[in-house]
Amino acid sequence: MSLKLKILGCHSAIPSSSTHTTSQLLEIKNNFFLIDCGEGTQVQLRKYKVKFSKIKHIFISHLHGDHVFGLIGLISTFRLLNRETVLNVYGPLGIKEFICVQLKLTESYANYPIVFHELDSKESELIYEDKKVKVSTIPLKHRIYTNGFLFQEKIGERKLNMDAIVKHPEIEICDYQNLKNGKDFVRSDLSIISNKSLTHDPQKPLSYAYCSDTSFKPEIAEIIKNSDILYHESTFLEDRGDLAIKTKHSTAKQAAEIAKLANVGMLILGHYSSRYENLNDFKKEASTIFLNTHLAEEGKTFII
Amino acid sequence: MSLKLKILGCHSAIPSSSTHTTSQLLEIKNNFFLIDCGEGTQVQLRKYKVKFSKIKHIFISHLHGDHVFGLIGLISTFRLLNRETVLNVYGPLGIKEFICVQLKLTESYANYPIVFHELDSKESELIYEDKKVKVSTIPLKHRIYTNGFLFQEKIGERKLNMDAIVKHPEIEICDYQNLKNGKDFVRSDLSIISNKSLTHDPQKPLSYAYCSDTSFKPEIAEIIKNSDILYHESTFLEDRGDLAIKTKHSTAKQAAEIAKLANVGMLILGHYSSRYENLNDFKKEASTIFLNTHLAEEGKTFII
Repeated sequence: MSLKLKILGCHSAIPSSSTHTTSQLLEIKNNFFLIDCGEGTQVQLRKYKVKFSKIKHIFISHLHGDHVFGLIGLISTFRLLNRETVLNVYGPLGIKEFICVQLKLTESYANYPIVFHELDSKESELIYEDKKVKVSTIPLKHRIYTNGFLFQEKIGERKLNMDAIVKHPEIEICDYQNLKNGKDFVRSDLSIISNKSLTHDPQKPLSYAYCSDTSFKPEIAEIIKNSDILYHESTFLEDRGDLAIKTKHSTAKQAAEIAKLANVGMLILGHYSSRYENLNDFKKEASTIFLNTHLAEEGKTFII
Repeated sequence: MSLKLKILGCHSAIPSSSTHTTSQLLEIKNNFFLIDCGEGTQVQLRKYKVKFSKIKHIFISHLHGDHVFGLIGLISTFRLLNRETVLNVYGPLGIKEFICVQLKLTESYANYPIVFHELDSKESELIYEDKKVKVSTIPLKHRIYTNGFLFQEKIGERKLNMDAIVKHPEIEICDYQNLKNGKDFVRSDLSIISNKSLTHDPQKPLSYAYCSDTSFKPEIAEIIKNSDILYHESTFLEDRGDLAIKTKHSTAKQAAEIAKLANVGMLILGHYSSRYENLNDFKKEASTIFLNTHLAEEGKTFII
């Protein structure tokens, strides 16, 4: 059981050969979730040897170019690679038109199904769920309708305590699933062996909160409370707090304040403005508020 | 006087970190013409240190992704760089909708004027002209409406033959422009000194024909006759002539046949399918028909 986050791009606004715009790949419970898709994301996926067919869900935070201009290229490449499986795209209302107009005009309709999940709620909502993981939106505050995403493992089955179980020969293998599901064992004389004495607690479910782009919005702390990892944009340092307010972005210090408020395990910074040459200044500024701060860097992998 | 062609990308279909899709920069008579704009073109322009503000005209051959998916990113970056000058975009009917829908949905209207020149003629037509250069379309034959582009220098002024002129003290500096314009010199007694004896012929105007993507279409030879450089796509070798027919592309041999028919000075091949590992096979195949054949390679510059 682990959560693996690969940074494909972590810079804002304008891409260059060494600074790609936002995209991340989250591996969680056998899901490969692509989060945002700036221009050139497909090239980054190739560079880091991600098998394209594994990506079944793409989450787009908002329709600014540095988060979405790579999506049409990726969708087209899926077609050229003869993809057949469904692709789910979660993003703001309008994302379907954004992609479909391009497919129409390039006369390159996808030969696999694309399901668009268009979002317009201002409240956090559950947008994806399977047996082991769920994804909810984190409403952010930017110049345009924007959501962050909270990826949460579900609480798994209880683990069998075999040392205890073998002491009760009346418990058979066919009873194990009930024990994993948390049920007590009922003997034929209707006496009970408590589940707790036969199983261990399941591993703590992991969670990842992705928050980009946004002004300082302390209200999100409640939604992302106790997340294991928080990625929070830090386009600016405090020296340009005026610009952060004007452009509805955050500073490294503000990102750290959110991390502290939400009591997360680890903070990752990113979406750096190109005006800053030394990214360590971001870490330095945030660390004064929240110690376990890390920098997103292209190609870096975070594993829990 | 020279013509300078920079290859920014020369591969077909799917980009990777080492194989970019089609884009070229043509420098001719102080114009910087961008020709096609695959995903990541803006990064290639940065890599090769092209000043973005110099680009005032972009020519898009057709609306397939590997020729146009980089355009919206470049247009957005122009805005972020506070461009003020007009951008002219020449491309198939639909290109305006293609860009404007994306600008609308990303809420990022350009803060500089963009003039779309939408093309739908099936005949060659003049689409750009200034004092020194003109650009015409080359109607191609592909799965979707496609034009190549013929860039031609205009015939320049005649060059003064100063050795001859100084022998005629009656010719004054204020007469020079008339001589450059080809007029004879008329003495006050109305006798004539022929222009030919006072000037040299102007330098031969240069021309560049860009042809991608297309089936073998010998009719274009007439339009591009005697061009100094022809770029002609060669997606396949003859071994996959069947695929060339099916996908409406050309083989290296067919590109060379066009070069020969049109009597061009030099042939450049490109738009290679990723199925081929050794690009020299393209040159080898074409050279059997047309000797002065070169391979487009990312970053390569051709100068006349």
